[in-house]
Amino acid sequence: MITLERTIAAIRPRDPGAVAEARAHQDRLTKPRGALGALEEVAVRLAGAAGVSPAPVPAPPALAIFAADHGVHAQGVSPWPQEVTQQMVGNFLAGGAVANAFAAQVRATVTVVDVGVAADLTPAPGLTIRKVAHGTADLSQGPAMTVEQAVAALEAGIEVARELVERGARCLITGDMGIANTTASAALICAFTGQEAAGATGRGTGVDDDTLARKVEIVRRALRVNGLDGGPAVPAAGGNGPEGEPGTAPALRALAAVGGLEHAAIAGFILGGAALRVPVILDGVISGSAALAAAALAPDVVDHCVAGHRSAEPGHALALAHLGLRPLVELELRLGEGTGGLLAHPLVCAAVRVMHEVATFDSAGVSEKEV
Amino acid sequence: MITLERTIAAIRPRDPGAVAEARAHQDRLTKPRGALGALEEVAVRLAGAAGVSPAPVPAPPALAIFAADHGVHAQGVSPWPQEVTQQMVGNFLAGGAVANAFAAQVRATVTVVDVGVAADLTPAPGLTIRKVAHGTADLSQGPAMTVEQAVAALEAGIEVARELVERGARCLITGDMGIANTTASAALICAFTGQEAAGATGRGTGVDDDTLARKVEIVRRALRVNGLDGGPAVPAAGGNGPEGEPGTAPALRALAAVGGLEHAAIAGFILGGAALRVPVILDGVISGSAALAAAALAPDVVDHCVAGHRSAEPGHALALAHLGLRPLVELELRLGEGTGGLLAHPLVCAAVRVMHEVATFDSAGVSEKEV
Repeated sequence: MITLERTIAAIRPRDPGAVAEARAHQDRLTKPRGALGALEEVAVRLAGAAGVSPAPVPAPPALAIFAADHGVHAQGVSPWPQEVTQQMVGNFLAGGAVANAFAAQVRATVTVVDVGVAADLTPAPGLTIRKVAHGTADLSQGPAMTVEQAVAALEAGIEVARELVERGARCLITGDMGIANTTASAALICAFTGQEAAGATGRGTGVDDDTLARKVEIVRRALRVNGLDGGPAVPAAGGNGPEGEPGTAPALRALAAVGGLEHAAIAGFILGGAALRVPVILDGVISGSAALAAAALAPDVVDHCVAGHRSAEPGHALALAHLGLRPLVELELRLGEGTGGLLAHPLVCAAVRVMHEVATFDSAGVSEKEV
Repeated sequence: MITLERTIAAIRPRDPGAVAEARAHQDRLTKPRGALGALEEVAVRLAGAAGVSPAPVPAPPALAIFAADHGVHAQGVSPWPQEVTQQMVGNFLAGGAVANAFAAQVRATVTVVDVGVAADLTPAPGLTIRKVAHGTADLSQGPAMTVEQAVAALEAGIEVARELVERGARCLITGDMGIANTTASAALICAFTGQEAAGATGRGTGVDDDTLARKVEIVRRALRVNGLDGGPAVPAAGGNGPEGEPGTAPALRALAAVGGLEHAAIAGFILGGAALRVPVILDGVISGSAALAAAALAPDVVDHCVAGHRSAEPGHALALAHLGLRPLVELELRLGEGTGGLLAHPLVCAAVRVMHEVATFDSAGVSEKEV
């Protein structure tokens, strides 16, 4: 818990001076004002997060794929056998998954972190074993994790972030693997935004109508069983919860109740990056729901995040709207693993490079627009 | 004209066998079917264009920025002085423009081609001088170019494509520079799609309401003066025009009447890439309108194109819809220069890499979805 508390305490909001300077610099560059659209805001955002304008180019990037299993798999919410989580870990380590191909394209390192795979994994290069439990309990029957387990997973994520930054990463990309984890994501999104289950629950990797209806019912039951069905369970940022408990307690309880171990670890990974002022590119709905938990624990963390993409999962759009983040890539990906975050990395770098490399009207001797 | 005719004759439609094989291979890879959304279609498209599945990874990329001036600038359609075209060519050659920063990010070479800048440019490394005229005539008063000039610019573009491929490029990215060229683009889009001027004309690099209204009126006048206001001027692909003239004549006349020299050169560049079976990533509205001309000359050219992005310019969406292309990046860029095409390049490579590098369910020992 000390690691978590210190990390939260170290997170700074964006620096208004750096933001203002970044905006002013954008307008001096040899391009019409605003001509880079949403990418200008990315460069400004990263300057604010770094506390300096221009922000450093966020490279090299490091992807961490947090893998875990889910007790709720027993409810038939996914057409994939649970063993696929473990098998895909092997695929990542062998370099054979889509995340590996995308990581190679953007020259990102790939680290797989076992925070809760149901099976015992053999140590291997590229695999970090930080197993908190052999999967979660079934969130539709009671809390998926104890608060202690959630904190342990959060701290595993924080430590992975620190290790990757120590090894030279200047951009962290979130990834996940966990059969059934879109169910936990939907429940987290409901818990943190107050959304009803039907609006936040989607087909994940592709379930049929009957399974989708069951999945919605499971999410609804999970919220009810865990006392999270009464609107957003988390008090306004920074405030204290009921009975004077610390502001983080309700968020931790909600995360533990309906999250997965990989969700908690990703939330920690995001917090860890932000505390070190290294920007974090969020992947899809699993990362988005984990970011809601991170933001509930430390609202300023959002200033350090970039939404890599928007997935086909309906809850993801809700999570991004709640976080106030605009996704960079919108191509109906629904894979996870960090694939959407990886795709966004060159866009983020391009946005920041402009601030370092592009000439101003003055320096290039280019005439400005006539009024 | 012989270069143009031979190029058009060399363009093949997509190979249905390669398309089918690419789709089947996608479904064997260790990911849920369709989980890569629009990127799966990109990989399939490039396999069809290449005639082999998987398609070669489209790298290294080469950007060509075609620069030219426009007689219609005299009508006050842009707030920027015409000299900015020439000044920005200098900025590209000095490496100071946004296109240079984005090209560095994706490791693309940058070639600037003078096909019609109003001033005489000094030879410099990175500059190809293929000047057809010192800018076009005013399209609102009569044809902007003669058909001979349009063909010369088309052939300049074809030859630049061939030179870049000879130097090793395996992906061509279109770029443009020409103050006032969104006006010509809007007129081309109207001419080739039958759209009315008001729907296709936008604010370009940022004009005020009065200038926008004037711009719409200029586009309308250009279509009327040049006899292009009676619906799409170009007969169905491959058919003959009035009086038995060759199928390409109406398209050439429309391109010459309301296009720019850079539009014609970009159309040639697209045709040249397609003829060599090297994929072409289209940039924004200038490239999109040029692609309409290319497609009117050789309908199969579209199979070799990927829409890099969709700009903020309303005509661009119309052009892409007419071409049946879905843009990969939608971030409200409105800069040109090839910036949107460059941003898309890593996404296109990632889509193709998947086909080469990702394991199948069988090879990775990953269980498939249970029915």
